[in-house]
Amino acid sequence: MPLLSELLAANEHHALSFSQADLPRLPTRKLAILTCMDSRIFPYKMLGLNEGDAHVIRNAGARVTPDVIRSLIISHNVLGTREIVIIHHTECGMQRMTNDALRMGLHKTYGLEPEELDFLLFTDQPQTLRDDIATLRASPFIPDWIPVAGLIYDVKTGRLEQVV
Amino acid sequence: MPLLSELLAANEHHALSFSQADLPRLPTRKLAILTCMDSRIFPYKMLGLNEGDAHVIRNAGARVTPDVIRSLIISHNVLGTREIVIIHHTECGMQRMTNDALRMGLHKTYGLEPEELDFLLFTDQPQTLRDDIATLRASPFIPDWIPVAGLIYDVKTGRLEQVV
Repeated sequence: MPLLSELLAANEHHALSFSQADLPRLPTRKLAILTCMDSRIFPYKMLGLNEGDAHVIRNAGARVTPDVIRSLIISHNVLGTREIVIIHHTECGMQRMTNDALRMGLHKTYGLEPEELDFLLFTDQPQTLRDDIATLRASPFIPDWIPVAGLIYDVKTGRLEQVV
Repeated sequence: MPLLSELLAANEHHALSFSQADLPRLPTRKLAILTCMDSRIFPYKMLGLNEGDAHVIRNAGARVTPDVIRSLIISHNVLGTREIVIIHHTECGMQRMTNDALRMGLHKTYGLEPEELDFLLFTDQPQTLRDDIATLRASPFIPDWIPVAGLIYDVKTGRLEQVV
């Protein structure tokens, strides 16, 4: 693994100056964030949070999937979070292609048809946020009194816009 | 939403001094990280990475789920990542309970039985990493030549231990 030895060496430096042994087990601000895996997204930094403040759940596109609902049920019911923000971003790779094109590309590369896979691509970002929040709200194990906001982060300005 | 206005105000400050408009769309180090949503986990910091270096996928327990495989297929095949590290951590909430206890707690709180939900809790962390890496390897759309490492992060020392 070309990068791994370098990452482990960097971690040795990290451990030598480690000063966060006292961070609490539960998120201090009782916040859960769902955002995209994109390498330009730094959820704590963009929200002015301190280390230990929030749970961070990330996947391709910041989509509300069964796995995200699983994580949020644990986050709220076991680990005490009380607010949820979902953060999409501009220039998201998920808006740049279609399921069909992605499937065709995979078929060409691997000679296999990924028929059953939905990659959860989207075009209309505000509508996707509304739909995903409705999906989350449909879970009986996320109480209605928990606020859920939908935001879009502009990767060119660093600014968040609230959509939902 | 009690916290939201505060988060948006903090973001205004972030945007005023924003200097990352030039981060590339694709992760610079061609790395994808899967780790836990836990609020004590800072994947870039613990690995000595710079902003823009890697995709970060996070859920409860850093488990390899269909949603994670979806994200990793996109990460590799569309966005060019070539190495994967999966990072568990000590004192993980997922090791502190059982599916049955969690189901009973939810039933008590909501009066509903979450029968179909598997919360993917675990006891043996190294074995869970091995099993999850095998699950990931079973996807035909993550090529065998992609290195996948399994690590455990010690939240009391900041140190990573390679398990797989």
